[in-house]
Amino acid sequence: MKALVKRTAGRGFALSDVPVPDIRDDEVLIRVRRAGVCGTDVHIYEWDAWASGRCRPPFTVGHEFAGDVEQVGSLVTDVRVGDRVTAEGHIVPERSYFSRTGQAHVDPQTKIIGVDRDGCFAEYIAMPARNVWHLDDSISYEIGGIHDPMGNAFHATLTAPIPGSVVLVTGCGPIGCFAVGIARAAGAARVIATDTNPRRRALAAGMGAHDAIAPEAAAAAVEQASRGLGADVVLEMSGVPAAIHHAFALVRPGGRVHMLGIPAQPMEVNIATEIVFKGITVYGVVGRRMYDTWLQMTQFLRAGTFDPTPVITHRLPLEEFEEAMRLIKAGDAGKVVFEV
Amino acid sequence: MKALVKRTAGRGFALSDVPVPDIRDDEVLIRVRRAGVCGTDVHIYEWDAWASGRCRPPFTVGHEFAGDVEQVGSLVTDVRVGDRVTAEGHIVPERSYFSRTGQAHVDPQTKIIGVDRDGCFAEYIAMPARNVWHLDDSISYEIGGIHDPMGNAFHATLTAPIPGSVVLVTGCGPIGCFAVGIARAAGAARVIATDTNPRRRALAAGMGAHDAIAPEAAAAAVEQASRGLGADVVLEMSGVPAAIHHAFALVRPGGRVHMLGIPAQPMEVNIATEIVFKGITVYGVVGRRMYDTWLQMTQFLRAGTFDPTPVITHRLPLEEFEEAMRLIKAGDAGKVVFEV
Amino acid sequence: MKALVKRTAGRGFALSDVPVPDIRDDEVLIRVRRAGVCGTDVHIYEWDAWASGRCRPPFTVGHEFAGDVEQVGSLVTDVRVGDRVTAEGHIVPERSYFSRTGQAHVDPQTKIIGVDRDGCFAEYIAMPARNVWHLDDSISYEIGGIHDPMGNAFHATLTAPIPGSVVLVTGCGPIGCFAVGIARAAGAARVIATDTNPRRRALAAGMGAHDAIAPEAAAAAVEQASRGLGADVVLEMSGVPAAIHHAFALVRPGGRVHMLGIPAQPMEVNIATEIVFKGITVYGVVGRRMYDTWLQMTQFLRAGTFDPTPVITHRLPLEEFEEAMRLIKAGDAGKVVFEV
Amino acid sequence: MKALVKRTAGRGFALSDVPVPDIRDDEVLIRVRRAGVCGTDVHIYEWDAWASGRCRPPFTVGHEFAGDVEQVGSLVTDVRVGDRVTAEGHIVPERSYFSRTGQAHVDPQTKIIGVDRDGCFAEYIAMPARNVWHLDDSISYEIGGIHDPMGNAFHATLTAPIPGSVVLVTGCGPIGCFAVGIARAAGAARVIATDTNPRRRALAAGMGAHDAIAPEAAAAAVEQASRGLGADVVLEMSGVPAAIHHAFALVRPGGRVHMLGIPAQPMEVNIATEIVFKGITVYGVVGRRMYDTWLQMTQFLRAGTFDPTPVITHRLPLEEFEEAMRLIKAGDAGKVVFEV
Repeated sequence: MKALVKRTAGRGFALSDVPVPDIRDDEVLIRVRRAGVCGTDVHIYEWDAWASGRCRPPFTVGHEFAGDVEQVGSLVTDVRVGDRVTAEGHIVPERSYFSRTGQAHVDPQTKIIGVDRDGCFAEYIAMPARNVWHLDDSISYEIGGIHDPMGNAFHATLTAPIPGSVVLVTGCGPIGCFAVGIARAAGAARVIATDTNPRRRALAAGMGAHDAIAPEAAAAAVEQASRGLGADVVLEMSGVPAAIHHAFALVRPGGRVHMLGIPAQPMEVNIATEIVFKGITVYGVVGRRMYDTWLQMTQFLRAGTFDPTPVITHRLPLEEFEEAMRLIKAGDAGKVVFEV
Repeated sequence: MKALVKRTAGRGFALSDVPVPDIRDDEVLIRVRRAGVCGTDVHIYEWDAWASGRCRPPFTVGHEFAGDVEQVGSLVTDVRVGDRVTAEGHIVPERSYFSRTGQAHVDPQTKIIGVDRDGCFAEYIAMPARNVWHLDDSISYEIGGIHDPMGNAFHATLTAPIPGSVVLVTGCGPIGCFAVGIARAAGAARVIATDTNPRRRALAAGMGAHDAIAPEAAAAAVEQASRGLGADVVLEMSGVPAAIHHAFALVRPGGRVHMLGIPAQPMEVNIATEIVFKGITVYGVVGRRMYDTWLQMTQFLRAGTFDPTPVITHRLPLEEFEEAMRLIKAGDAGKVVFEV
Repeated sequence: MKALVKRTAGRGFALSDVPVPDIRDDEVLIRVRRAGVCGTDVHIYEWDAWASGRCRPPFTVGHEFAGDVEQVGSLVTDVRVGDRVTAEGHIVPERSYFSRTGQAHVDPQTKIIGVDRDGCFAEYIAMPARNVWHLDDSISYEIGGIHDPMGNAFHATLTAPIPGSVVLVTGCGPIGCFAVGIARAAGAARVIATDTNPRRRALAAGMGAHDAIAPEAAAAAVEQASRGLGADVVLEMSGVPAAIHHAFALVRPGGRVHMLGIPAQPMEVNIATEIVFKGITVYGVVGRRMYDTWLQMTQFLRAGTFDPTPVITHRLPLEEFEEAMRLIKAGDAGKVVFEV
Repeated sequence: MKALVKRTAGRGFALSDVPVPDIRDDEVLIRVRRAGVCGTDVHIYEWDAWASGRCRPPFTVGHEFAGDVEQVGSLVTDVRVGDRVTAEGHIVPERSYFSRTGQAHVDPQTKIIGVDRDGCFAEYIAMPARNVWHLDDSISYEIGGIHDPMGNAFHATLTAPIPGSVVLVTGCGPIGCFAVGIARAAGAARVIATDTNPRRRALAAGMGAHDAIAPEAAAAAVEQASRGLGADVVLEMSGVPAAIHHAFALVRPGGRVHMLGIPAQPMEVNIATEIVFKGITVYGVVGRRMYDTWLQMTQFLRAGTFDPTPVITHRLPLEEFEEAMRLIKAGDAGKVVFEV
């Protein structure tokens, strides 16, 4: 089958012909239809410090996808051939402390598809049946194919009290834009989104941000929306130090800062004035809660209260992977989806 | 001044001329502009068992209102003459255990205006400054005048996890209709409202209920919306035993039933099958959280995500109080508001 | 092997010789060492309305146990022959909505060992590996053998805010007595336990109840401990209507009533005065949270802050099952454990 | 009256004769009996950057105390002459957003006694009646005199889920030592306390720490207590950067770090590895929740489950204030209390 493979340590991917994966008795084989491209894929493509420290080529990349079940293992009882599905890409030991206490998303033993084992930029992928999530008939493969990053946004947003809140989203990449839409759907009083990039701000506006503005305009917007109190909730989606300081400065005393963006380096934090004296709560967002987040996401999609489509700016065949990498690095794309 | 007075034990009210109230140093005098009429007022009018057991005539009735501050006591620093205000009608000892731990709404020592002391169906009312809530310029006296029952609905609704949930509202009186609108604004996946009265169902539909149906249709609607699981949240707004059994039957295992409706009599409950085996949480809703609920309400109104106006079906001068009583008892009115 | 079997519809059990169970690839075979006897077993023995409506003889009874793993299925990776274990007896579909959202304990599709499939009053039991819980070396088979009912008590108790609270436990059967000990270990300010039976009160006192008293003395004890406010938390462990009314009467406004006891019949509840006007939260406790409750239980046992041993009043061989039934029905026993 | 006064900008205090304060109608005059000395007092004594930036001499210092009510304002109804009391030293506008939503402890408009207005190192202090907290007969002036810092410890500790948890306390100053005792009383499975100072470790051990160890031994102790998972809860009480990195390193994925210690400078934080990827929650602890924390503290003291006495190492008359400053700066004292 066709697959986008990280062949060796070093820059680049190769579109290769590889065998269709075998499945274990508790796994299913899925014919991939759509697959989202993520910044993580770019890190692997570029073979940066993180990637070279973690990944062991060769392997097929990609971790966001949807498709059809083509084959099921002998022990699988509740997934059937022909089912339309997506999947949680974090594979966690079933009986670990974390799995058993609703914290599978932070299990240090997690194996991620497309990072630690073969991924989904391919015609087929093998997945543990346990990780499969069924798609409603009303949900397209395309939207199914971006459930992973949407899930990050749902996790980041709905673990804060959104109804009636003033919400600041710092960073309008795809996950930030999803968060804007989720916050609106969940009844935020005001959603203020910031990014230095005007195209990204336009995407955020398209997802319903009341204000989609440059970072330097954020303080005034928060001031006005909150009558000087500060934002009830900040969703930090950029990983940029200036934005992180912004988050701490603009959250109201006693508010919440949910951090999903990942700074490339350690950074100076004034713990006294930015965290302690403000009495805030900071929450590190990793992955998706299994499977509370998935259920919430499905509820919003079914209800039609949230539609991520405007964030998808490019649809490409797998063959155009170089263009996909270029688009994401240029920073102008919203979500890029492979049509496999 | 003109006031609607419960003169003596027995049925009825009298429109009377009474002195403008004096205020204490920590109180303010408010010129009432609009005042909502509540089922409680009908109980007092009818002088039923509850009313005759609790109230001590003579006193001015009415507990929902908005108006202008006309005079402030010498110790009042943050309310000014001319301020547009409404007020929390439950007056609670400032330093009680309940007041000091965020539970003022359940303080047994509460005194309610229009029930335990003079109320707001009058040209003027004296209120402790502590209970005053300022109205934004954008909020009309009319909407200010129904903050009390809207607050009950906000309390009942937003103490449950609404975003993405299937919500069943049993009973489409004014508070039930408000709850429908709040649940929609807070991102419920589906809001199903039931009432035996088609006019009330029409009001609920006007507030955004996806389904506004007769009780006998509720099971099928919940089944479909929840894929057979049951409602995540039931807001019981009727106090009718059949509706309460409905609530327990249609909530999903592990879900929440918030009870605001007040049954007139004790009723049989199958605690084993209706509560314990289902693993549900039942929450008794009384009053409004002081003042978290008020803040949330203001946030929704400011944001324009919730508008109670369609629930207000009648506006009458104080003189037409008999008509107001008749309308509410007939069960066809939504909210009735006095224009004082 | 030797097994206590419900052979046919009708009263009684039979000690029988039956085949050692076969295991599936995802199951383990456990050599039972100790097994707790529960009121549910008595219902099945007596073949009351509940039992005859639910159970389908023949089957081996018993659902509380600990033992050694004797054999593991081919797919089982994290349980080994020789492991000392107990198990969650509620077998829930792995990918159900409830399992996937931390609510497996309320999944309506649950199958219970000893009720819906063969149980543990036998030399061997087959269990899904997923349900196995490892015992620390420091935890005896005996205590392992009562993890199921202790888990109910942990679930009921630790889902309420215990540190610093006044806790009323109504009903001093084994689960009530465990709850007394857990509440003490978790820092309750005062634990008041009530039962009509003095022997049970003595067991509660042995577990650390500050007051172990007759129900008629409860009001005064709660009044004194709470300075007239009422109990912060009531754990209703009896299912007796008088105790349930007691629970509603003695909980403070805004407090919590956790209901684990199961009334045999529907009963009258004054929802207005017992629930709504008091603004309380009522929580139906079923089973154990999988597996948060198990983890908490293990933490307390490891730490030595909780020791259930005083509740175990009788240890019998399986052959003396008639005596076990008699002891429990007499109401004088604490926990009865079979030594298999 | 006698008072310890910060007379002018610059180092030092002066024991002075000043007028007994006048009280407003809503205040009470309290005869101070005991007063705790805090690190904040040392900052004001030393006139460091923080102190010189915030304080406006002359003023009486001190913010922790207990005593007897000597006089009450005309509007005060629930505090009486002769009452034994302590008080919340953070004076917050009564009707601010923060006060009205249970967040008074983070109100930026707070005025602190002994910092922003006259404090309690004096024979008398004037306090708003609203801030007074009554002492039970069973609670001594001495323990009443340290309710403020104990309250910080209760706030830091009981906002985390303590029963059954592995708790790491970094920093064994008085507040850290109180936290050790509170965590034990609330049922922590294991309490590990670290400090570089052996005398402080001895105090922590006296308060019940299972391990009272040097920071370099913490990793092994946490590893063992948590079976390699990490601490469920870390209470950071030192403000020392090395300890803060320790906190992030030793908390388990998904755990909580409550930060009360105040670093003197901004410090480098690896937000990616220390917060985001671990999925932790960081909570900034400031002051005491008004008045939930006070209620909890009283419940523990009444119950006798927590006794701070071992932390009080020195009792001095006000005249020996230079010795008090020296003791605290030397780092060897636990709590120092003035006997006024």
